Amino acid sequence: MSVGTNWSPRNPDYEKVVREGFDAEAPLKSIGASLMKVEPGYVEIHAPIQPAIMTSYAPVVHGGIVGLLADCALAHAALTLAAPGAMGVTVEYKINLMAPAVGEHVIARGTVIKPSSKMTVAKAEIYAAGADGSERLVAIAVGTLAAL
Amino acid sequence: MSVGTNWSPRNPDYEKVVREGFDAEAPLKSIGASLMKVEPGYVEIHAPIQPAIMTSYAPVVHGGIVGLLADCALAHAALTLAAPGAMGVTVEYKINLMAPAVGEHVIARGTVIKPSSKMTVAKAEIYAAGADGSERLVAIAVGTLAAL
Amino acid sequence: MSVGTNWSPRNPDYEKVVREGFDAEAPLKSIGASLMKVEPGYVEIHAPIQPAIMTSYAPVVHGGIVGLLADCALAHAALTLAAPGAMGVTVEYKINLMAPAVGEHVIARGTVIKPSSKMTVAKAEIYAAGADGSERLVAIAVGTLAAL
Amino acid sequence: MSVGTNWSPRNPDYEKVVREGFDAEAPLKSIGASLMKVEPGYVEIHAPIQPAIMTSYAPVVHGGIVGLLADCALAHAALTLAAPGAMGVTVEYKINLMAPAVGEHVIARGTVIKPSSKMTVAKAEIYAAGADGSERLVAIAVGTLAAL
Repeated sequence: MSVGTNWSPRNPDYEKVVREGFDAEAPLKSIGASLMKVEPGYVEIHAPIQPAIMTSYAPVVHGGIVGLLADCALAHAALTLAAPGAMGVTVEYKINLMAPAVGEHVIARGTVIKPSSKMTVAKAEIYAAGADGSERLVAIAVGTLAAL
Repeated sequence: MSVGTNWSPRNPDYEKVVREGFDAEAPLKSIGASLMKVEPGYVEIHAPIQPAIMTSYAPVVHGGIVGLLADCALAHAALTLAAPGAMGVTVEYKINLMAPAVGEHVIARGTVIKPSSKMTVAKAEIYAAGADGSERLVAIAVGTLAAL
Repeated sequence: MSVGTNWSPRNPDYEKVVREGFDAEAPLKSIGASLMKVEPGYVEIHAPIQPAIMTSYAPVVHGGIVGLLADCALAHAALTLAAPGAMGVTVEYKINLMAPAVGEHVIARGTVIKPSSKMTVAKAEIYAAGADGSERLVAIAVGTLAAL
Repeated sequence: MSVGTNWSPRNPDYEKVVREGFDAEAPLKSIGASLMKVEPGYVEIHAPIQPAIMTSYAPVVHGGIVGLLADCALAHAALTLAAPGAMGVTVEYKINLMAPAVGEHVIARGTVIKPSSKMTVAKAEIYAAGADGSERLVAIAVGTLAAL
């Protein structure tokens, strides 16, 4: 899927870096998250909706887990455009939780809004997807990522 | 610990409601989080720093887990002041990650700033604590919680 | 300009309500702001770049004025979808200032992301526009608007 | 008023720098804002509540003006701790508007939470004050300031 941006990666091996970083993250592994797409300035993360990530109040994904996925989508989208050897650090993010995440899996799409060698701004849109492929926007986040 | 606020709980059984809600949250249980204090308008959550919640880039707590703890501190602080039967829903929150969370455990302190029967504003301060009891502020969050 | 959303206004006279509200705002009048477009779920505000809204540090628009325009774009976008007689109140917003606003005028585009009779989520994108019609994205905001 | 922090200014002439910067800001001058206190890591700004800064919907201060004052409180608090010659730039801020600002004047108190030579985090609390000296908290903001 094209995302309408057209950023040039500074690291030709960006996909390898981002995939290796993602695969090493214990909190993402523990919830069964997968990195489905990696493009310059864009990543897409999927996670199955299961009791381990639901809130106790209703059969919906816990807001803190939606936030975790948003944070990861922001950070890995920024990482696709980082210089070789650079490490991404989340400076801040804000998330609006707009609807309960109900369905088969969660999709977190991270997109760089403004890249920079120092501070990148990115957004993440979180969708709840059904088994039939239908999607519903459940949260939106915007954050700042620094490169170290 | 007193926190300088002086809110009156609308539900005399607020502590029971908050503790039962906390104990039922699978994502909190999976990281070993404990609810150490519950007062009107205030909660304190502890979580041991262990590999399962660390980022792969360094031996520090993953920013998304810091966010998860902040979200929970905000929501449970708001819940201490909710009416009987009311359910708290996180509308939005913003978090600034200011320092790496390194140490023995994380402490998330949630405090209500402005309670309301409809929309409560709360803040959360996240500290990294050493085995010697020393604490370092690593993140601050402010969020809006709605009652349903 | 179509914005890709397709919201139905609850008030057939939404444009009149939004324009009258905008025209009555003293802070917007004092900086010469104009409401250029009003569509269901969308508004576009223009303001000339002039010394009165610049920071003293450089010939760029003061960040607080960029924030004021963002706030107004969010609130008026939400107002286009409000019920007759409803009044919009800004609950919270977050803004990332990404580049200095230099040029002839500022354009603030407000778009509803999720409408609701109680709490609407909207985003605002702020551009600096040159005399030649070129535009540069300088800030992005996301906020929550309540209807009273 | 002491604010409980104990930051050391890097510039012994910090007060002069902050006051001169404040006095040169056209948007602050136009609303009659005054810099009442300048301490290391802390500033206090007052602005009279008058029709020019009110919203048209009710006799309360426009939310965008509350945001402007918050932005200035954040930036000038950070500036008190900046190195000689450094210029502060607002990276992002988030504001929660909790109550209508009604009264005689607005007070914006900016406090540094975490100083840094690169990125400082600060908070601002906005109060509406009556002629009798009573104060009511109406908004809270947290933001990131960069030094150039």
